[in-house]
Amino acid sequence: MNLSEYIRNIENFPKSGVNFKDITPLLANSDAVEHCVQQLLVLIDDQEIDKVAAIESRGFFFGTLLAQKLNAGFVPIRKPGKLPYKTLKEPYQLEYGLDALEIHEDAIKKGERVLLHDDVLATGGTARAACNLIEQLGGEIVQCNFLLELEFLNGIKKLRSHPVKSLLKY
Amino acid sequence: MNLSEYIRNIENFPKSGVNFKDITPLLANSDAVEHCVQQLLVLIDDQEIDKVAAIESRGFFFGTLLAQKLNAGFVPIRKPGKLPYKTLKEPYQLEYGLDALEIHEDAIKKGERVLLHDDVLATGGTARAACNLIEQLGGEIVQCNFLLELEFLNGIKKLRSHPVKSLLKY
Repeated sequence: MNLSEYIRNIENFPKSGVNFKDITPLLANSDAVEHCVQQLLVLIDDQEIDKVAAIESRGFFFGTLLAQKLNAGFVPIRKPGKLPYKTLKEPYQLEYGLDALEIHEDAIKKGERVLLHDDVLATGGTARAACNLIEQLGGEIVQCNFLLELEFLNGIKKLRSHPVKSLLKY
Repeated sequence: MNLSEYIRNIENFPKSGVNFKDITPLLANSDAVEHCVQQLLVLIDDQEIDKVAAIESRGFFFGTLLAQKLNAGFVPIRKPGKLPYKTLKEPYQLEYGLDALEIHEDAIKKGERVLLHDDVLATGGTARAACNLIEQLGGEIVQCNFLLELEFLNGIKKLRSHPVKSLLKY
């Protein structure tokens, strides 16, 4: 199965000049989703994982599925103000201005082995912020795991201290 | 297993006077997640489902898991501007003002049997808007399926034309 056939290019989204990779055709096909999960598990290669942390919102789709296959807990990393309990907050740079991510301060215990998952690795800013949050809680990042990597944006550079794996590269 | 032990009460979130049900302790425990998925499947009772549609963002957690167990496609219903392809939009009433939900116009085919899932049924406004989107695309709503129902808000009244099932009632 060629997973890239289930990913649709949307030109000029969310803004002019950006070629967005739309994974909703993949999500709409349960065989393709299962194949994708199995291939993501191959990237993880039987490493022991205590928690799968995933970034709002598109990271949640495969993050929960991976967590269940790995018998790991699931940890949502969200935009500010969305998580109801006590949080840690980490700012990151956007093209213009700042945004931030939050994690519940009891989401990860010291020494837990964490897989970070998101759908797309682009500039690496959000993934770097997510790694910082996991490490502030004492989690050990086993892998940064992505469905797609936009290699020309060189996001891997921001994650250099961790193993980075992606299923599809553009 | 008593799932309600994995749900944390957060007082005065997101605003004063609201007692928020935090499902992140449940998500953090893969045995509890698996038990919860199995119990949600009992509510669905072997009905044939073509698509599971879930509402951004907390509906995505169990929505993708349910879709895989049912061998059904997964359809995200999102806030305006988040879905990259052509969408239908449905406004709904908030306490003060309006918000809206969107669905991709190719997400559901005419006659497909759809399970709508969200984490919480509160006033029913978002679930009603989601049902309207599914029906505008010609989908047949088999069940509106929730993890939790806040019965005192009587959201079920807004969904009267569809079967509504919830795992936990408060």
